[in-house]
Amino acid sequence: MGTGLLVAVVVGSGIAAQRLSPGDVGLQLLENSSATALGLAVLILIFQPVSGAHFNPVVTLADRTLGASCSVGTIVAYVAAQVIGGIGGGVLANAMFGAATALSTTERATAGHLLGEVVATAGLILLIFALVRTGRAALVGPAVGAFVGAAYWFTSSTSFANPAVTIGRIFTDTFAGIAPASAWPFLAAQLVGAALGVGLVLLLFPLPRKARS
Amino acid sequence: MGTGLLVAVVVGSGIAAQRLSPGDVGLQLLENSSATALGLAVLILIFQPVSGAHFNPVVTLADRTLGASCSVGTIVAYVAAQVIGGIGGGVLANAMFGAATALSTTERATAGHLLGEVVATAGLILLIFALVRTGRAALVGPAVGAFVGAAYWFTSSTSFANPAVTIGRIFTDTFAGIAPASAWPFLAAQLVGAALGVGLVLLLFPLPRKARS
Amino acid sequence: MGTGLLVAVVVGSGIAAQRLSPGDVGLQLLENSSATALGLAVLILIFQPVSGAHFNPVVTLADRTLGASCSVGTIVAYVAAQVIGGIGGGVLANAMFGAATALSTTERATAGHLLGEVVATAGLILLIFALVRTGRAALVGPAVGAFVGAAYWFTSSTSFANPAVTIGRIFTDTFAGIAPASAWPFLAAQLVGAALGVGLVLLLFPLPRKARS
Amino acid sequence: MGTGLLVAVVVGSGIAAQRLSPGDVGLQLLENSSATALGLAVLILIFQPVSGAHFNPVVTLADRTLGASCSVGTIVAYVAAQVIGGIGGGVLANAMFGAATALSTTERATAGHLLGEVVATAGLILLIFALVRTGRAALVGPAVGAFVGAAYWFTSSTSFANPAVTIGRIFTDTFAGIAPASAWPFLAAQLVGAALGVGLVLLLFPLPRKARS
Repeated sequence: MGTGLLVAVVVGSGIAAQRLSPGDVGLQLLENSSATALGLAVLILIFQPVSGAHFNPVVTLADRTLGASCSVGTIVAYVAAQVIGGIGGGVLANAMFGAATALSTTERATAGHLLGEVVATAGLILLIFALVRTGRAALVGPAVGAFVGAAYWFTSSTSFANPAVTIGRIFTDTFAGIAPASAWPFLAAQLVGAALGVGLVLLLFPLPRKARS
Repeated sequence: MGTGLLVAVVVGSGIAAQRLSPGDVGLQLLENSSATALGLAVLILIFQPVSGAHFNPVVTLADRTLGASCSVGTIVAYVAAQVIGGIGGGVLANAMFGAATALSTTERATAGHLLGEVVATAGLILLIFALVRTGRAALVGPAVGAFVGAAYWFTSSTSFANPAVTIGRIFTDTFAGIAPASAWPFLAAQLVGAALGVGLVLLLFPLPRKARS
Repeated sequence: MGTGLLVAVVVGSGIAAQRLSPGDVGLQLLENSSATALGLAVLILIFQPVSGAHFNPVVTLADRTLGASCSVGTIVAYVAAQVIGGIGGGVLANAMFGAATALSTTERATAGHLLGEVVATAGLILLIFALVRTGRAALVGPAVGAFVGAAYWFTSSTSFANPAVTIGRIFTDTFAGIAPASAWPFLAAQLVGAALGVGLVLLLFPLPRKARS
Repeated sequence: MGTGLLVAVVVGSGIAAQRLSPGDVGLQLLENSSATALGLAVLILIFQPVSGAHFNPVVTLADRTLGASCSVGTIVAYVAAQVIGGIGGGVLANAMFGAATALSTTERATAGHLLGEVVATAGLILLIFALVRTGRAALVGPAVGAFVGAAYWFTSSTSFANPAVTIGRIFTDTFAGIAPASAWPFLAAQLVGAALGVGLVLLLFPLPRKARS
């Protein structure tokens, strides 16, 4: 549900922005990024006590790599739920706005965009586990929302940074969509970024520390 | 007063946006949604210690359904105050901006918009009671503000999600108004969304838990 | 200093907005209101431990009316500092932007705008003392910032709500200025609003209560 | 890394804004300032437990002046890391967006802009040490983000306020760049502002106090 609603927020606000501000792509992105930042923060607040509010396969994988004691079966179940939710969220957004569910035709894979995905995903992983490892997990919601609100702009790729969301965004041919041929390079870049992020967490936050309050 | 000021914020900022940014409906909505998100968060902070800061009949009804021990008379009084406040807020906004109080002529009822209202209301109920049931009631103000700031964009209906506010917005023929013929389907969709939201709360947060701090 | 920097933020961001977004008054106001909301929140955080961070004569007067034990001499000194600071802030903003310090020619006094000032000032007083009387003074900074960010939009007057700031804004003939002939009705409306706000505080928050946290 | 990512945020979001909103410089600055405010807040949250999250030579120098017990060698190492990081961040942003790394040709040094830098830097130093000296260091991240979000607008110079970031921004000939000939006067103004800020801290917050909370 969390991943699904996240994709619904991303795709839905993208459609609204595209329709209501046809004259300026930057304004569209500002509307899209503001809605996503606020919506993602809220979704994490809701689902954090339920499931940890991962929403994101690379977060689940990084959590395991960094020491969480979850079985392979749990990881598979999480990733499956995330991907199915992501696709469902795209379909829901299309339905709310009366848009057809169709494969996106927006090609996004360039070298610069892939570098952007590496930076965005590494930053996301570093942020989440920096907070968790310093006793500030309660800040993950607003902080991740703020991060994504910035990363829409400072990374050239508009910061997908999430394989399940990337797959979900294949299924809408609107502002936030991504063509299938571009999705796979994005997924690869996200995995590279996640590995880089895990390395940075191990380097900068080697052992869980108590919060400094 | 809370519902009234909320409608005054929604309608007033809508009129200001419409007059000052005539060229771009998206920019108008961004101005309207930003002001509403900030204003709603503040109003909840003010009135939470006074009355619980419901402002919203479906929140009052959900609260009772989920176990609050309030009498039917209290509920009726709350809902009456919410509706009267909502209408008063519309009148106040019209007066501040020198606009006539008149019935809105903005038709909004489409299948997509009604689905949007279901999603928005369910999400609002889920958010509020997720926070309350996990000991984080102090976060309701900023979190609900953020939710509405996102839901203006990601739901196709711009997220009324509140029967009293919907009724109040009938009484202004400006940006944020809704024609009477569209209001009733919106109310029905909000009730459906509230029931869905209550179901999700019962499913995901079955028993009150302590905050994880 | 607090009032001065507040006026510098209001006037300075107004000049920047006016120069950089010449085509859309609404966008100018969005830029101006966002900067003011953020800047005011920060200024309150800085000066709250020093002086209480009033910045506003009607807050000082309301504080006394609601029971603060400060002498008349202290009040006079506060108000004098606020007014002098307000004027200095306008001069500073003009200097940063290379604009002449001159009397504003922007007439703003209409019946709707004066009603807006009453609503804005009453809301500001209610918010501040609602938080203080419920043990949440630490929230005053971000909450007042958010309130003003919303009130720029939902009140027709763009929410001056502060006599010292109003006087300071006389001394700049730019976006945020106010002509002297309009300033005095604004001051009167602010005093009416402050009295209304004090009444609401006494009604809704009759005795100091402990925070519920 | 912190300074580098900060410059990447500033320069990257500047390039994105410039490309996506070509028609309105104000809208570009709003996009740039929003992304920077959010990104800077997040970066401080990440790096505060690691290194104190200075990112800024004048913060490091002010910290020492105000009593931090760090050696000259440590200060030199911090400043060197900040400057190298700043340049690296500019190069990273250029690479993500496929822009050449080249010296900026944007001249910015005017008397008004230099006064703006003095005000911005003094305010930044005052804010940081006001929070630290009153036991509110946990608020530095969001508060500094908010300050910069406002200062982009209310200072005429768009608030560089950081020598390492200023040097980093020399190396991009895009929206956020600064020509070398303008950078040195900016650095001088920042040092003046930092000295002023330290004086204000000593005046207003003479001894470390406990938080009132």
